[in-house]
Amino acid sequence: MGDFPRTEKTEITRLAKRGAYDQETIFSLLDEALYCNVAYVREGQPFQIPTGFVRIDNKIYIHGSVGSFYMREIRDKKHPVCISATLMDGLVLARSAFHHSVNYRSVVIFAEPQLVDNTDELYAALEAFTEKICPGRWADVRKPTPNEWKETMVLSFDIKEASAKVRTGPPKDDEEDYALDVWAGVVPLKINHFPPQADPDLKPGVSVPAYLK
Amino acid sequence: MGDFPRTEKTEITRLAKRGAYDQETIFSLLDEALYCNVAYVREGQPFQIPTGFVRIDNKIYIHGSVGSFYMREIRDKKHPVCISATLMDGLVLARSAFHHSVNYRSVVIFAEPQLVDNTDELYAALEAFTEKICPGRWADVRKPTPNEWKETMVLSFDIKEASAKVRTGPPKDDEEDYALDVWAGVVPLKINHFPPQADPDLKPGVSVPAYLK
Repeated sequence: MGDFPRTEKTEITRLAKRGAYDQETIFSLLDEALYCNVAYVREGQPFQIPTGFVRIDNKIYIHGSVGSFYMREIRDKKHPVCISATLMDGLVLARSAFHHSVNYRSVVIFAEPQLVDNTDELYAALEAFTEKICPGRWADVRKPTPNEWKETMVLSFDIKEASAKVRTGPPKDDEEDYALDVWAGVVPLKINHFPPQADPDLKPGVSVPAYLK
Repeated sequence: MGDFPRTEKTEITRLAKRGAYDQETIFSLLDEALYCNVAYVREGQPFQIPTGFVRIDNKIYIHGSVGSFYMREIRDKKHPVCISATLMDGLVLARSAFHHSVNYRSVVIFAEPQLVDNTDELYAALEAFTEKICPGRWADVRKPTPNEWKETMVLSFDIKEASAKVRTGPPKDDEEDYALDVWAGVVPLKINHFPPQADPDLKPGVSVPAYLK
């Protein structure tokens, strides 16, 4: 997989060595992140909305109700948006307060919304949403009715102008500080899935599906 | 603690019952979230930056290098910004694809940056940053030198115009779907801290401090 071109908007200027422009880094982060933030502008004022999303090939999809104010707004005005997703991988504890940091991966994408009105693409996106949060789930659940499809708006964004910023590894201290009697290292962070909690109104006798174990 | 006033920008219109405007909900989420997203506008184009932050009283603080392009930009132009922080608490698995959701808490704040040039406030903010990611750490590490303080820019934002959106609890399905033989419930999510990994260059004999165990 290739690199995305660096543009004035996506080029990482601060700590440039943390910049990444390759599809593999960017796509794998998008596939792992549970939500993104969509930033847009209304009358000079920035707004942002955290929302679930899914990547298929070279597109990001978000969905919402056809009544969603912000989705209608960015759809109608074809607002340029900035989408970001971030994963926190660890706390970086240096010997000096100044060099404390975090290990993270973040992606920023600049794009314009496209309304998805092709039924095949719409269905594929909504199936992918469900499968992203819970692989194996789609085959198990009641599928959308024609009315439910109609109540759902899906917008797509081409991933063309995108960059990632990544920090990994141990702390970087000043040369003379490595002699200090201060512990230094990384506390890894990860989002944990806990055992499923059944709905109190679950029909008696329905057991936890294998894909959740 | 009281409520923040609802404004045209902060009033939750979509799924209004998920809206929260009280300080306790908003502050506790800000204190738990490891990073926020700062959205701002440059020449009509939205940008956003994920960054660490800390809340003290009624203010949010972010910090960066005095060479940071975006921090200088929002400082100099006093850009209005939109700050958000989000926590994902669970995957909500309904009987129908349509009613799948997530449990989450998110806060959105609208504010303008203030440069923190008061030394006491600056020091307090930077100590709070370190203590937020690792309570007990500040007392243990080498404190900033005069030059390091000078290299650090801190911006504050008054928390005045803010709202939260919160979903909790089991899935909500359509009446007739409760009879289906489909498992439904919640998969709780939580960010886990794993055992600390020592820096390969750690001075021999320095042990893991008590506050990390």
